[in-house]
Amino acid sequence: MGTSTIDITEKIATKAYGASGALIGGETLKPMDLERDAPQADEVLIETLYCGVCHSDVHQVENDWQNTLYPCVPGHEVIGRIAYAGPNVTKFKVGDIVGVGCMIDSCQHCSACKEGEEQFCEHPHGPTMTYNGYFVADETKYNTFGGYSNNLVVKEKFVLRIPDTLDISKVAPILCAGVTTYSPLKHWNIKAGDKVAIVGIGGLGHIAIKIAKALGAEVTAITTKEEKRQAALELGAHNVIVSENEEEMTKYQKYFNFILITIPDPFEINPYILLLRRRSSLVTVGLLAPYKAPVNNMMVASQARSVGGSMIGGIAETQEVLDFCAEHNILPDVEMINIEDINHAYQKMKDEEVRFRYVINLATLNNNELTNK
Amino acid sequence: MGTSTIDITEKIATKAYGASGALIGGETLKPMDLERDAPQADEVLIETLYCGVCHSDVHQVENDWQNTLYPCVPGHEVIGRIAYAGPNVTKFKVGDIVGVGCMIDSCQHCSACKEGEEQFCEHPHGPTMTYNGYFVADETKYNTFGGYSNNLVVKEKFVLRIPDTLDISKVAPILCAGVTTYSPLKHWNIKAGDKVAIVGIGGLGHIAIKIAKALGAEVTAITTKEEKRQAALELGAHNVIVSENEEEMTKYQKYFNFILITIPDPFEINPYILLLRRRSSLVTVGLLAPYKAPVNNMMVASQARSVGGSMIGGIAETQEVLDFCAEHNILPDVEMINIEDINHAYQKMKDEEVRFRYVINLATLNNNELTNK
Repeated sequence: MGTSTIDITEKIATKAYGASGALIGGETLKPMDLERDAPQADEVLIETLYCGVCHSDVHQVENDWQNTLYPCVPGHEVIGRIAYAGPNVTKFKVGDIVGVGCMIDSCQHCSACKEGEEQFCEHPHGPTMTYNGYFVADETKYNTFGGYSNNLVVKEKFVLRIPDTLDISKVAPILCAGVTTYSPLKHWNIKAGDKVAIVGIGGLGHIAIKIAKALGAEVTAITTKEEKRQAALELGAHNVIVSENEEEMTKYQKYFNFILITIPDPFEINPYILLLRRRSSLVTVGLLAPYKAPVNNMMVASQARSVGGSMIGGIAETQEVLDFCAEHNILPDVEMINIEDINHAYQKMKDEEVRFRYVINLATLNNNELTNK
Repeated sequence: MGTSTIDITEKIATKAYGASGALIGGETLKPMDLERDAPQADEVLIETLYCGVCHSDVHQVENDWQNTLYPCVPGHEVIGRIAYAGPNVTKFKVGDIVGVGCMIDSCQHCSACKEGEEQFCEHPHGPTMTYNGYFVADETKYNTFGGYSNNLVVKEKFVLRIPDTLDISKVAPILCAGVTTYSPLKHWNIKAGDKVAIVGIGGLGHIAIKIAKALGAEVTAITTKEEKRQAALELGAHNVIVSENEEEMTKYQKYFNFILITIPDPFEINPYILLLRRRSSLVTVGLLAPYKAPVNNMMVASQARSVGGSMIGGIAETQEVLDFCAEHNILPDVEMINIEDINHAYQKMKDEEVRFRYVINLATLNNNELTNK
């Protein structure tokens, strides 16, 4: 794609994979043609290269949260190259390798945005999510299209620098899975010597093990699956608990200073509360459904424990986790797929068979030539 | 009582008020005669003067938590005078005015005890509670008798100094209600300028308003009762919300840095979660029953909130809150009653008619002469 050929006054033709309606009864993600608005003065056009596949993508296309806008083009772990930079863009230039995470805009003037916590933007629609989002800049527009596509148009402020030392074919999942787990580990002040449990060893959990270890914690992986025990050790966990093993669960009661739960589906939380030391916290991320049974508040109060939640992270924090991963040589364990394998990949994710994150090679969209129309 | 007459090798005859069985079907607390073991070398005998009436006392005599040992003599907010000090007692002497709170002993060698958090003592029975407790020093003995009696025998380490400036007829509730609310305010680091809500303006809540205000917070009282609005303002609250007023509840969404809930019976927690600012915590104390409806973990995660609990406080922390109250001229608002009015007082507590804490004048046990038998 030559930047000189882009007419940024026109709509930008875009090749994508998405769902035209809820993915039920054998429906699948399919190729689709879209248009994006031309970049504004403070926006960049990104030629996309790789996109991580997040469990949220599956929830969203299947309308599990009853808020999906169709057509739905998922993808919020996007790596690409700047193809055009608007005249007011100062941080990036054409050719830079960059990332886009879960958000592409926010109101910029509420207290959350001013504090760099755009994920909590107080605009009535919240921040503009990278896909399935509302545009805060123009409330008449909605339904953003994500990274399962050959380009993105994003406000400079929401674009991340990718440190040179990080392998661009593997880095994408840091943009959501990385910051989603890094943010609570930082906000709950995890430090050297803390005993931390990571529950759920999938896309989020496997990165969380690496980050918590790099923070100096003693890391215990907790998984439902005996066959993940060895994999968790190889990821760097000091200990592994298989949650169905009652003896192991009993042994670790009142043990942990912090527990991060990355399970994406409803689960029974009370057995994990028992693993918390007094005055310690458990935090869930990525669960947008009720727990299987209510939190037992007597278990909580009797040891002055807390049960919290966390949601992605701000833009500055996303840059921080990228830099942290570069400094500590952390990369996700990824399996590269072609875009046409996406439906098969979704099924394997639902069957918990991915080790540990799929990344789409967007070159396989086979249409990296942007056309003006 | 002359100390010279005490034979500490004998059992100590004790006059008390208690329940011989669960208080149901018109049963009431009645006078009873008990014996206490003579004080050990590191223990003191206290001639009691005043005892606060805690909502836990009502729960316990009615066996609401299914763990009541009968006969049950409640009372864990006790003020008295040292009548005898064992030979190894160094901190107190005969005649000193002292207090006893929720605990009279603990194992002293677990990590919680070593950290001064005896309320989390890891002995199989936990710490020795002032009433309805097991003796950690002798596991064959159980059922301690509390402060609705004319004396107590307590290990020196669990006895509190009462600062001279505090009115001894009013100070008793600080020993439970005070530390129970002070502890979470301190552990969640409430400081000048924080916006704090105190929910439930009763025995605990009314002291919490005073403590939070003394810590420099902007304090909002939340009550179910319109008729408590004026009382809450008089206690020092800057604002009052009547929780049944939807308009007021909506106005304060995402407002508070911290919410302390002192409601002693099952309640609906989710409306309070909505009042928390992002990255803020709600803590319940004194609720030993499930919430009316499960915590909505999506409301929690979407703003990175936390829902925690807390349980009384350690001995050092109890001394700290006594000293804090002396420094800031904080006293509970109490209504003095005679011991024979206790059953009527329980009914008024259940009807939420006490303003705000009953204290029993134990002189009305009419039997402050200890006899040896």
